[in-house]
Amino acid sequence: MKFRIEKDTLGEVSVPVDAYWGAQTERSKTNFKIGPAASMPKEIITGFAYLKKAAAYTNYDLGVLAIEKRDAIAKVCDEIINGGLADQFPLVIWQTGSGTQSNMNLNEVIANRAQVNQGLKIGEDAPFIKANDDVNKSQSSNDTFPTAMHIAAKTSIMQQTIPALEKLRDSLEQKSMAFKDVVKIGRTHLMDATPLTLGQEFSGYVSQLNHGIKALKNTLPHLSEIALGGTAVGTGLNTPAGYSELVARYISDFTGLEFVTAENKFEALAAHDAMVESHGALKQLAVSLNKIANDIRMLASGPRSGIGEIILPENEPGSSIMPGKVNPTQCEAVTMVCAQVIGNDVAITVGGMQGQYELNVFKPMIAYNFLQSAELLADACHSFTIHCVDGIVPNYDRITELLNNSLMLVTALNTKIGYYKAAEIAQTAHKNGTTLKQEAVRLGYLTAEEFDLWVKPEDMV
Amino acid sequence: MKFRIEKDTLGEVSVPVDAYWGAQTERSKTNFKIGPAASMPKEIITGFAYLKKAAAYTNYDLGVLAIEKRDAIAKVCDEIINGGLADQFPLVIWQTGSGTQSNMNLNEVIANRAQVNQGLKIGEDAPFIKANDDVNKSQSSNDTFPTAMHIAAKTSIMQQTIPALEKLRDSLEQKSMAFKDVVKIGRTHLMDATPLTLGQEFSGYVSQLNHGIKALKNTLPHLSEIALGGTAVGTGLNTPAGYSELVARYISDFTGLEFVTAENKFEALAAHDAMVESHGALKQLAVSLNKIANDIRMLASGPRSGIGEIILPENEPGSSIMPGKVNPTQCEAVTMVCAQVIGNDVAITVGGMQGQYELNVFKPMIAYNFLQSAELLADACHSFTIHCVDGIVPNYDRITELLNNSLMLVTALNTKIGYYKAAEIAQTAHKNGTTLKQEAVRLGYLTAEEFDLWVKPEDMV
Amino acid sequence: MKFRIEKDTLGEVSVPVDAYWGAQTERSKTNFKIGPAASMPKEIITGFAYLKKAAAYTNYDLGVLAIEKRDAIAKVCDEIINGGLADQFPLVIWQTGSGTQSNMNLNEVIANRAQVNQGLKIGEDAPFIKANDDVNKSQSSNDTFPTAMHIAAKTSIMQQTIPALEKLRDSLEQKSMAFKDVVKIGRTHLMDATPLTLGQEFSGYVSQLNHGIKALKNTLPHLSEIALGGTAVGTGLNTPAGYSELVARYISDFTGLEFVTAENKFEALAAHDAMVESHGALKQLAVSLNKIANDIRMLASGPRSGIGEIILPENEPGSSIMPGKVNPTQCEAVTMVCAQVIGNDVAITVGGMQGQYELNVFKPMIAYNFLQSAELLADACHSFTIHCVDGIVPNYDRITELLNNSLMLVTALNTKIGYYKAAEIAQTAHKNGTTLKQEAVRLGYLTAEEFDLWVKPEDMV
Amino acid sequence: MKFRIEKDTLGEVSVPVDAYWGAQTERSKTNFKIGPAASMPKEIITGFAYLKKAAAYTNYDLGVLAIEKRDAIAKVCDEIINGGLADQFPLVIWQTGSGTQSNMNLNEVIANRAQVNQGLKIGEDAPFIKANDDVNKSQSSNDTFPTAMHIAAKTSIMQQTIPALEKLRDSLEQKSMAFKDVVKIGRTHLMDATPLTLGQEFSGYVSQLNHGIKALKNTLPHLSEIALGGTAVGTGLNTPAGYSELVARYISDFTGLEFVTAENKFEALAAHDAMVESHGALKQLAVSLNKIANDIRMLASGPRSGIGEIILPENEPGSSIMPGKVNPTQCEAVTMVCAQVIGNDVAITVGGMQGQYELNVFKPMIAYNFLQSAELLADACHSFTIHCVDGIVPNYDRITELLNNSLMLVTALNTKIGYYKAAEIAQTAHKNGTTLKQEAVRLGYLTAEEFDLWVKPEDMV
Repeated sequence: MKFRIEKDTLGEVSVPVDAYWGAQTERSKTNFKIGPAASMPKEIITGFAYLKKAAAYTNYDLGVLAIEKRDAIAKVCDEIINGGLADQFPLVIWQTGSGTQSNMNLNEVIANRAQVNQGLKIGEDAPFIKANDDVNKSQSSNDTFPTAMHIAAKTSIMQQTIPALEKLRDSLEQKSMAFKDVVKIGRTHLMDATPLTLGQEFSGYVSQLNHGIKALKNTLPHLSEIALGGTAVGTGLNTPAGYSELVARYISDFTGLEFVTAENKFEALAAHDAMVESHGALKQLAVSLNKIANDIRMLASGPRSGIGEIILPENEPGSSIMPGKVNPTQCEAVTMVCAQVIGNDVAITVGGMQGQYELNVFKPMIAYNFLQSAELLADACHSFTIHCVDGIVPNYDRITELLNNSLMLVTALNTKIGYYKAAEIAQTAHKNGTTLKQEAVRLGYLTAEEFDLWVKPEDMV
Repeated sequence: MKFRIEKDTLGEVSVPVDAYWGAQTERSKTNFKIGPAASMPKEIITGFAYLKKAAAYTNYDLGVLAIEKRDAIAKVCDEIINGGLADQFPLVIWQTGSGTQSNMNLNEVIANRAQVNQGLKIGEDAPFIKANDDVNKSQSSNDTFPTAMHIAAKTSIMQQTIPALEKLRDSLEQKSMAFKDVVKIGRTHLMDATPLTLGQEFSGYVSQLNHGIKALKNTLPHLSEIALGGTAVGTGLNTPAGYSELVARYISDFTGLEFVTAENKFEALAAHDAMVESHGALKQLAVSLNKIANDIRMLASGPRSGIGEIILPENEPGSSIMPGKVNPTQCEAVTMVCAQVIGNDVAITVGGMQGQYELNVFKPMIAYNFLQSAELLADACHSFTIHCVDGIVPNYDRITELLNNSLMLVTALNTKIGYYKAAEIAQTAHKNGTTLKQEAVRLGYLTAEEFDLWVKPEDMV
Repeated sequence: MKFRIEKDTLGEVSVPVDAYWGAQTERSKTNFKIGPAASMPKEIITGFAYLKKAAAYTNYDLGVLAIEKRDAIAKVCDEIINGGLADQFPLVIWQTGSGTQSNMNLNEVIANRAQVNQGLKIGEDAPFIKANDDVNKSQSSNDTFPTAMHIAAKTSIMQQTIPALEKLRDSLEQKSMAFKDVVKIGRTHLMDATPLTLGQEFSGYVSQLNHGIKALKNTLPHLSEIALGGTAVGTGLNTPAGYSELVARYISDFTGLEFVTAENKFEALAAHDAMVESHGALKQLAVSLNKIANDIRMLASGPRSGIGEIILPENEPGSSIMPGKVNPTQCEAVTMVCAQVIGNDVAITVGGMQGQYELNVFKPMIAYNFLQSAELLADACHSFTIHCVDGIVPNYDRITELLNNSLMLVTALNTKIGYYKAAEIAQTAHKNGTTLKQEAVRLGYLTAEEFDLWVKPEDMV
Repeated sequence: MKFRIEKDTLGEVSVPVDAYWGAQTERSKTNFKIGPAASMPKEIITGFAYLKKAAAYTNYDLGVLAIEKRDAIAKVCDEIINGGLADQFPLVIWQTGSGTQSNMNLNEVIANRAQVNQGLKIGEDAPFIKANDDVNKSQSSNDTFPTAMHIAAKTSIMQQTIPALEKLRDSLEQKSMAFKDVVKIGRTHLMDATPLTLGQEFSGYVSQLNHGIKALKNTLPHLSEIALGGTAVGTGLNTPAGYSELVARYISDFTGLEFVTAENKFEALAAHDAMVESHGALKQLAVSLNKIANDIRMLASGPRSGIGEIILPENEPGSSIMPGKVNPTQCEAVTMVCAQVIGNDVAITVGGMQGQYELNVFKPMIAYNFLQSAELLADACHSFTIHCVDGIVPNYDRITELLNNSLMLVTALNTKIGYYKAAEIAQTAHKNGTTLKQEAVRLGYLTAEEFDLWVKPEDMV
């Protein structure tokens, strides 16, 4: 490979001759070989491109950047937003905790690409656009990285996670309505209990997701606050008047999502409570989804030695050794994702709690975990919906068999003959392997006609 | 000790003759010797007393309970709410996961106490009030325990946690205003950075708490939903029409806090996402408080070999071996509480995710962790406020010394002479142990007059 | 209440006249009203008593303490070890993170009690024993508290947790042997799979516990290292030569458990990796127990609409509304304890990771969580053993019914007719609701005689 | 793209014509679009290649596989082990929780590649090697996937994590020895305390790592147990006699690492306590490393307004806005990795605890988190060693200045004049901003000569 010599404030560095990045990116590549290369999430790169463009526009409007520089910067940013230059961001998550080097990666790539877009060569001595003085103007890593985090996080949630959750919720709701008359045995403590409808059972899942989506949306105002304008420590040093509000407006325009300047920039740099807050809602959704997916696989268990009240789509052969086996694989993918999100929540918590003075230096780690959770939940919900929930059908015969066999229908008699006599009927039938009706009549507590009148599963739901 | 014989559906049990509790409580005492005795939180007992009273009123209003039974039940509930009968609740957290036995404990104590209040003796053969048929009328453990959880949780948050958080926030805000002109060195990555005021630094803490309190309040609507009326599996079997809404109204009246009947009872029994959601906000606050308390102890470190920019109240001798040592003990109590709350969040998450079918059976564990967090955060914030934050004073001499000595004031020159020359000045001064001004002039990048004009810490904040 | 005036290096304090504690304990009581009073675990108090006695003996042996002082100190320590003076330790967990004030609480109580034991009054001007200079001689809070932690932790594990785990393991092993010929359907992905014996199923639980107990024992050497002798920062300042080794020997003698002086005192004060390590093993056991208890409740589910392959003891009525219901309540208590231990592990992790310089100041929080986990696991295992596992019996009829009905017996044919034809048989039987044998013959892949010869569940285990 | 038609037991599937994989892999690709494509860790693929080869050898030795099939299978396995066919494993982590489809991916690729290696075309009607009947012979997903997990996990730990930890430990130990005479102020509660040497401070870090490495090694015996031979549910159905032991011996031979057949196969399929156990040790190391890295950045803080006792290598410019700033970036990468590992531990715990009956279906998630932790810790330790710790030098001037200024040297006087008088000296000096010596003499407690004789920092370490 051929190299060119680049300089930064610490001295000279050899950079691959065709790379748009410069000295600081190269140093970071060398100094941080931790985990897979180029692991910094692409959503963060895109978030940076949006904010660099917004900063250029704001700097121009406020009289501190020439229009041709603005346009040159914006052009490269658009290229990046549209997926271009993807191989120019080689840095890893596990770098400086402020993400400084990824900020410089963007600054360098944008400056050099702009140079080339002008028909000049990288490194010619009077650069058209300077990485620090132009691209990074009115900015610091300390306010850009958290801004990129919030842009990336909110975009992922709005465009991926919430739509996928709503899609799953809708599918479950449709099932709930379709199953509204399917009376079945209820189970508490895993033990037979009084009946409900399968539709009611699914309505609980719908309600969990509705509450979870609402909780997630509750966190968006905090996540919509951006740090940009705080620069190095939150004071906004080296920014022109009006910068913070205007740059937030441009970011909103460019992304099509609402963002506002953070009401307190010191918090926005030194803490990432907004990320902690939003991810807390993702974790809550993981808790809900784990319950839902586990229920569904238990309800579908069998086919002959389990519960077997519902039937899931057969998507693939289930076993490399047991012929004919079909497994609840979508449920398994969902519950694995839930475990991941719950673990990620702790990682974010541990990072979020350790800010020191004016800066939290766990930024890339927090961003990575957050975006992984948002994406995995979105993908898992989508997959679960189309490959599992949409295709669920009740196993009517099995449901009826289990319902009629149940001893807990006796609960309907509490208000007729009292808890104690009802219990005696149930216990006797359990012991003798008989039916409730048989024992109720034999014990003389009610007539067969009364039993049929009072013990109707369909009236108990 | 003397015993009487009690019966339940499984047979006879010996109960201490003076105990108001009955057979089922006694069985639970015997069967669950796990952890300290009587560990079920008293807030849960009180929550139960509120709901039993509300249920009695509702049952009367709806024509299924006699007025004298209503009043007898209500009288005992009021006694319990006012702290009476405290030794009659001997059960532990680590019992049935539905809390059934604590529900029965309340049922039994209320029934027997009502008996005694009538001038009768416990166990006389025709009890005036029956535990299952009267006190528990229109109820199940499965809807009462989660209702008691929500009453206890919301009460603790509203009456303890939020007021204590607001008190701490107010104290920090007062400090922020008092310190608004105290210009000091900023620190990012623990390294010297551009200046800010001590007031700005504290304003970040205020903003963290403001956002955290708002996040906590966001969770209250979900927590205000109560399960009562769902009975065994969520269908509301054995409840009279209109029961759910009316009982929620009575609970609101009696507690003085707003509660509504859960929009979906199946969710309210089978999941505890509302607890997960609210505790997520408590965890976020723990994350914030850890940052704040750790910052404060770092800022106060010394007295001679640390940062020493602020001075904390001296509350106690700090060392049993090092004479004259004073430590940031309140900060330490706070950060220990934060660690606990973060751990509790995982316990609640793990319990919350494992509901099965119509019931989650981690209820007492979830309640215990939630209430511990709410109480510890409240107490810790209160203690931290009055024994630490209220008494913080700046160490003006130290702040000025560190500020004037800083190399990062050079950042003010970026917009005058560019980032690279500014860096050269800082690095040279660092290497030579000189001042920025000396090197700026020596390198010929600006005059002494320009330096004094451009590098003013008070203009950089 | 009447008070006496005590003094410490910060000035005067009013102390209840009869209290053995002194100024510093009283200050702590006032300054730390966080959570329930007197919450510092009694095992820590006992651990302190052992080490104070050992220090007194060592100080005497090494010529720095008079024999009558040694004996006076030791006498009070023995009193405390034997449960005396229990109301003299009013402090809370949430105090100084070094536990300094609990160390002083012990120092003060021992000194004053010794005074009284001499027939003198507390506070008479020339105290016979001085809290700092005699009781605390050759010690610091910084090395005593972690020593008390290790004594308490190891004692709890050795005397409570391991015996209870072994008892549960033995009970499961006994069941495993008793059930060794009970052939039943296996389940993977919750779906019917090839058979195994109920004894084999239980043998997996035994193996989990065996590995877990071994893992726990692996952590004991680290936990057996004690910090005592490190004093304030780990250098052992103000201790006589030979002190560390000798005091460890005395502690071993007095407790009857092996302890050694920590090979590195700086680690022993500044980190609590030994606690993190041991609790990691407790967490692993919680993971195992959650699996075991959940399996057992799923296997016992029903009685008519679940799996129902085993029958658990009926310990109490299960429902306040559903007559005759019996629930797997011991399993529920166990799984709640597991969730708690998993949460505690995170609390300990978060505390353990935040040591700073020469001291970790999350000591009481770490100790509290550790001891809670050790105790809850011990109690839960004990309760689970005697109230559940010991009484498990197979439901033979149900096991046989499910086994014979299973489609996965077809796996036995893989090696005879190949995976694909075997799958076809199973799928056809599933579709038609027929038996494997019927379809095997109908499809012409084997004869009825071959089927009977090759498909024998008892040969498949 | 061109496709060929493949069949499995559920029917026909279109597969890219050149792909070595078959129907089941293709179904999984379609059904599980969750997270980035091809995310199943390559270490798992390699682990599978080892075990497939070992199984082929064992099957041949035990007379159930022809030698030419053995060799054909082994040849492809070697190709995969050596990094070949890397684009033939397109599946994701978030699939079936047993990893069945990755097992089939290997089976299919090996079978088809072997076919091609014979000069035949994929899909020609009588395949030379069959995926299920030959490659998967004597195996199930349920025993192969956990075996691949253990091979991958142990290999990563032995070849990456432990060597990197030892390298860091050695570097810290070298520093500890180099700094053994550098007397400096100690700090407890972040406050000035008695002195120690910088070497002693670093020795604590060495001790933490030594204990952590030992704890990690303690977990290897459990991790060395492999499930292979258990097949579908642990009974070893369809394996020839002697298979389990022999296949473990072959795996040991091929990998060069010791593996043994699991003493209980039911545990080995249904639980992943071995992974929980080993990762627990990785988490402990994360706890240690967080302390170490945080200490180092605090000790290096400044350069003018922090602690500044040590100087870290300057690896890159630290700020995009503050010229001349150099940050502790390696420490930040390390602490971010620690947070990740701590989060991963919870993900693994949550997955590990949810095994059901004969199978745990969180296998790929557990493997992914474990391998990420092992790799990140290895890389981070390596980077931290060479880019930070190796280059640490003491800032002698600063150390001396802080030491001589300290008030806690007064502790040396405890044994001369008692704790109370010593405290008075320190407090007076603190109040007056004077030296200990000045106040000691002024208060008349000792002479200047005595002070110089008794208060020698170098004697206090």
